[in-house]
Amino acid sequence: MNLEEKPLNQNYIFRGKIVNLRVDEALLPNGKTAAREVVEHNGGVCVVALTEDNQIFMVKQFRYPYGEVIYEIPAGKRDSKQEDPLACGKRELREETGMTAERFIPLGELYPSPGYCGEILWMYAAVGLKSGENDLDEDEFLQVERLPLQRVVDMIMSGEIKDAKTQVAVLKVAELHRQGKL
Amino acid sequence: MNLEEKPLNQNYIFRGKIVNLRVDEALLPNGKTAAREVVEHNGGVCVVALTEDNQIFMVKQFRYPYGEVIYEIPAGKRDSKQEDPLACGKRELREETGMTAERFIPLGELYPSPGYCGEILWMYAAVGLKSGENDLDEDEFLQVERLPLQRVVDMIMSGEIKDAKTQVAVLKVAELHRQGKL
Repeated sequence: MNLEEKPLNQNYIFRGKIVNLRVDEALLPNGKTAAREVVEHNGGVCVVALTEDNQIFMVKQFRYPYGEVIYEIPAGKRDSKQEDPLACGKRELREETGMTAERFIPLGELYPSPGYCGEILWMYAAVGLKSGENDLDEDEFLQVERLPLQRVVDMIMSGEIKDAKTQVAVLKVAELHRQGKL
Repeated sequence: MNLEEKPLNQNYIFRGKIVNLRVDEALLPNGKTAAREVVEHNGGVCVVALTEDNQIFMVKQFRYPYGEVIYEIPAGKRDSKQEDPLACGKRELREETGMTAERFIPLGELYPSPGYCGEILWMYAAVGLKSGENDLDEDEFLQVERLPLQRVVDMIMSGEIKDAKTQVAVLKVAELHRQGKL
């Protein structure tokens, strides 16, 4: 069964600091055409920083689109489409928490909302942590907390933690931990 | 520590079929102002439909922003901001797979990319399945498969399945299953 859609043309509506928006015309498998709204983003990285006593670093941050302060793991977007995800992850972890790590373990990628958005998020676990100074962006306000891994899993299972990357990356770390691989 | 940002004004750039885009001016905790790019979306629902022999329904679909066919659980967007998530979930499950279910168990919400996007995804497990006729939207092309729950968990852990909602909802179902709650 052919599922593929072919781009016929691209029309940029907006080029911003965080996202671009375009509306393409696409050729569907049945020969018809349809409009496709696409949000472009440089992609980003998130990190589950796990201490030796099984705590993880969590960040409380106001998220403007929801008007809420929510819990997330440390994360940030790439400076460009070319930036190496691991380098970005190391930088964001240090900037937000002051931590560096001996070892970064890839946890795979995450497509946040594949119907209309092309963002890729690379996920890592970080172990062998060493503390240093954090270094926030000028317009970044956040509060760092350490919580036990199991407590964060419970907050995910109860629905209290809603952020997609945090749910995926922490549940993966819990599974690897259960398998003795972390 | 005050983390809150206050909206000062909203400027709509685009109102589309799937997303709207606005750029707001926001007042930051330090008294400065900053632009905030916001993608608006009606929100959606996804469903892990679990058979009695622990298989789940997966959908293979071409996702235009990535130019890839990917695996996802059945899902769809709400017709409006007012639509009841559970009603939407029942409809999308039936349309995409033909299945109805005796029981829907809430798995919490998912914020796909909270830095710039206001979408909410409601997640459900569905059990007590009965088969019927599927009923796809005119421009919707997809392929339905049944896969063992454990096989899907393995595909998530290996990085093969990248869709955020699928990773979160399936890992939650696996955890509930392990706890004997499903």
